[in-house]
Amino acid sequence: MGRLSVRRPVVRIGPDGRRRTLDTLAAEEPLELRVDGKPLSVTMRTPGHDVELAHGFLLTEGVLGSASDVLTARYCDSFDDDGRNTYNVLDIALAAGVEPPDASLERNFYTTSSCGVCGKASLDAVRLKTRFSPAADPLVVTPAVLSALPDALRGAQKLFDSTGGLHGAGLFTADGELLVAREDVGRHNAVDKVLGWALLQDRVPAAGTVLMVSGRASFELVQKAVMAGVPLLSAVSAPSSLAVELAQDAGVTLVGFLRGETMNVYSHDARVT
Amino acid sequence: MGRLSVRRPVVRIGPDGRRRTLDTLAAEEPLELRVDGKPLSVTMRTPGHDVELAHGFLLTEGVLGSASDVLTARYCDSFDDDGRNTYNVLDIALAAGVEPPDASLERNFYTTSSCGVCGKASLDAVRLKTRFSPAADPLVVTPAVLSALPDALRGAQKLFDSTGGLHGAGLFTADGELLVAREDVGRHNAVDKVLGWALLQDRVPAAGTVLMVSGRASFELVQKAVMAGVPLLSAVSAPSSLAVELAQDAGVTLVGFLRGETMNVYSHDARVT
Repeated sequence: MGRLSVRRPVVRIGPDGRRRTLDTLAAEEPLELRVDGKPLSVTMRTPGHDVELAHGFLLTEGVLGSASDVLTARYCDSFDDDGRNTYNVLDIALAAGVEPPDASLERNFYTTSSCGVCGKASLDAVRLKTRFSPAADPLVVTPAVLSALPDALRGAQKLFDSTGGLHGAGLFTADGELLVAREDVGRHNAVDKVLGWALLQDRVPAAGTVLMVSGRASFELVQKAVMAGVPLLSAVSAPSSLAVELAQDAGVTLVGFLRGETMNVYSHDARVT
Repeated sequence: MGRLSVRRPVVRIGPDGRRRTLDTLAAEEPLELRVDGKPLSVTMRTPGHDVELAHGFLLTEGVLGSASDVLTARYCDSFDDDGRNTYNVLDIALAAGVEPPDASLERNFYTTSSCGVCGKASLDAVRLKTRFSPAADPLVVTPAVLSALPDALRGAQKLFDSTGGLHGAGLFTADGELLVAREDVGRHNAVDKVLGWALLQDRVPAAGTVLMVSGRASFELVQKAVMAGVPLLSAVSAPSSLAVELAQDAGVTLVGFLRGETMNVYSHDARVT
């Protein structure tokens, strides 16, 4: 099964009784991200595409602007009790002149000195940090193209079928062509992997693209779209209030409740015609 | 609408065309948690039950063991541009002798010095940290009781019906009686609010209870159950590999894919009979 999924015994109980069987689970392991050798964060993720994950995370936190901002990405020596490398510690070496991230990265997008801790301060922080603005992106997408995205994303989620337990994210063209899809136990990680792929392909800012996510649309997912220059974010489920405010503020079209032929467009609806 | 939900204009597109309407969204705002005046973390949450959220977070991170470990919980002065208190900064004053949390809290459950960053180290960290062990809890629950929990939780989610976009968590007795239910844009927050309620009610360790969550079961949710002494965690969707490993290791019964009359029991299935 490799490192992406794990088989485990399970007791299945139903109307017909109880039986022992095997179930396939999505793998979850910690990844420690270091920048220039210094530990920055630990996230629980599904192993695989770790280099993309690191690039996407650092892009959407404002550290990276292009693939050339990274010199090398390599797994550190991190060994388990049996002496095997865990491949769970990744070190990113930044190119000369690239400012390393603030140690208190988590706080950056939530608070600014201008006012207290509030939604508006969070919006201000994104505005100050982003290198790209999707506001002027001329993307136009038809409702028919959008309606096809959830199935297209689901079709690209190889692990979902076996585990039933993974978040998905996909980047599409305006015609609905899938550029890349990634899965992860964490919804933010799936998006980071997709946007990290785009950065590594020199496709950031990701002008003219649609980012589709399998769950809800939170502030942080809209933030990631803005930071990567994605003009349209669509989600199967509901957005939060702050997600809509940020999308409106930053010029991102936010589509929610994308199910069958219906959808809600919460901001900049002129792009959907 | 208060602070829990927000009405926003939306363009609804469907087979019958396009119309402007109003949609109700779950509120999302940052909460800065301080301990003895020192900033510890910022989380995006749905406002409300913030004191429970803070108690549950500090309980499940190993800082608190009982309600008496907290002297006071109060909102700090945090003002928006209009001079209004944002109620988004909460300061917890610890009782004498209670050790304040490590500033690098996030890393605590993922790494130990004994080995590299890996799943096993994460399990070891929970074992070292927890004050309670659900392993010997004599809880027994019938499949019929478990089958009724998703609907009972959903019925208690007041905001879900209007917004369609909230995670839910509920604490139940072995007979399926609902003790408390909470909602949040963040799945961890909903659980923290429930477990914080239990702590404030002097019901921790939460022996003999069932914790039901609306989504998937991750390592971190099992960790929270362990740290609060909850012997059974049930989830509507899939668990991850590390969630199952931790549940097995810590003596927690983990139920997943709880849908209709069917369910998968991933660990300690003797409690479900």
